[in-house]
Amino acid sequence: MKVEVAERRELSDATVLRLPLYLEAVAALAARGVASVSSEELAASAHVSSAMLRKDLSQIGSLGVRGVGYDTAVLTDQLVSVLGRHEVRPVVIVGMGRLGQALASHGGFDGDGFEVVGLFDHDPQVVGSSVLGLPVQDVASLTEAVCEHGSRVIGVVATPASAAQQVAELLVAADVRAILNFAPTTLQVPPTTDVRAVDLSSELRLLAYRSRISPASALGGAPA
Amino acid sequence: MKVEVAERRELSDATVLRLPLYLEAVAALAARGVASVSSEELAASAHVSSAMLRKDLSQIGSLGVRGVGYDTAVLTDQLVSVLGRHEVRPVVIVGMGRLGQALASHGGFDGDGFEVVGLFDHDPQVVGSSVLGLPVQDVASLTEAVCEHGSRVIGVVATPASAAQQVAELLVAADVRAILNFAPTTLQVPPTTDVRAVDLSSELRLLAYRSRISPASALGGAPA
Repeated sequence: MKVEVAERRELSDATVLRLPLYLEAVAALAARGVASVSSEELAASAHVSSAMLRKDLSQIGSLGVRGVGYDTAVLTDQLVSVLGRHEVRPVVIVGMGRLGQALASHGGFDGDGFEVVGLFDHDPQVVGSSVLGLPVQDVASLTEAVCEHGSRVIGVVATPASAAQQVAELLVAADVRAILNFAPTTLQVPPTTDVRAVDLSSELRLLAYRSRISPASALGGAPA
Repeated sequence: MKVEVAERRELSDATVLRLPLYLEAVAALAARGVASVSSEELAASAHVSSAMLRKDLSQIGSLGVRGVGYDTAVLTDQLVSVLGRHEVRPVVIVGMGRLGQALASHGGFDGDGFEVVGLFDHDPQVVGSSVLGLPVQDVASLTEAVCEHGSRVIGVVATPASAAQQVAELLVAADVRAILNFAPTTLQVPPTTDVRAVDLSSELRLLAYRSRISPASALGGAPA
């Protein structure tokens, strides 16, 4: 019951991103037949402080037992449930340029709770070709092809900016509720669709800005 | 003088990411011979609120004049200076798999204040080939090749996780102070080197988590 309650509470992005580290560590222990693990040991495996681990796990309703630690099988089940790992989320990638191909072959996009079920492009020279064993389909068939997988599909937009809005509309028409947008443009979608934007050049800009003003670059400017 | 002072103040990541939008808008006006622009007009071009624009620009020492607005030529110069656009930052990309190729051809990595000056890989079948007109060099020559561009180089790590630490060490040896890491692993570097990590699958995980707990998915689960 605890898990059900915890699932309805919204966790911070940072916590959501640390939970897979804990899951990997505790599942490995459970698979080796280790029945319980202390917060210190588990935190060390996940390269975080034990205080942070305890705080993160308390938020999913897993408190551990003083002097005993966490039951590895129970904690594994809780993490699997909270992270939704008991269900594989279908992913479709639209835009089979270099970025789309890189994403299709990226371990984090295929496997680990996700399965790439469809690849799409509009270029007749690309449609019909095969990328990593999956056929590239015509974007014109996107809505129909996505509908068969239901509203649990995550749509990944890896097209140029000029095509992205049209693709987003096709995804919305297919009842896709979650879109990851790599195109450098803002997508207009209904409030029932959640869009996360990844701007690959933003990180480069931030890094450039920081390295210009940081003490590290000031040191670099000191006389040798 | 104001610009110099402003450069030394650290801006938030969000502000740094909005400044290029303002620069694009105001530079276009300046190029068309428009001498001044109101905060409302400029904010509309950049798709932000005028209050946010005024706050952002005040942080770089640009206050505008009531009833007149901002001098487009002066504001362009200030933004160019703060963003470091008057200097082009050299970028080297290590790892010429699909992701490295996608980054090499990404508009945000080549152009817009950055210039890709070197591509590297360790695979003898890839070394010597050409990607977008640049030769792929052997990673063994990385330190030597980077040194010629000085410590202003930004190193982009697009290798598998297993090779990333070794590449980071080569970059550090070449006095690179800024590394953008796409490999799904944590790099150990000296404090004088700034690393920003981009985990492509994190966004997918966050999106999946949010769409499972969001009102949007709750609506999806309601009886029709």
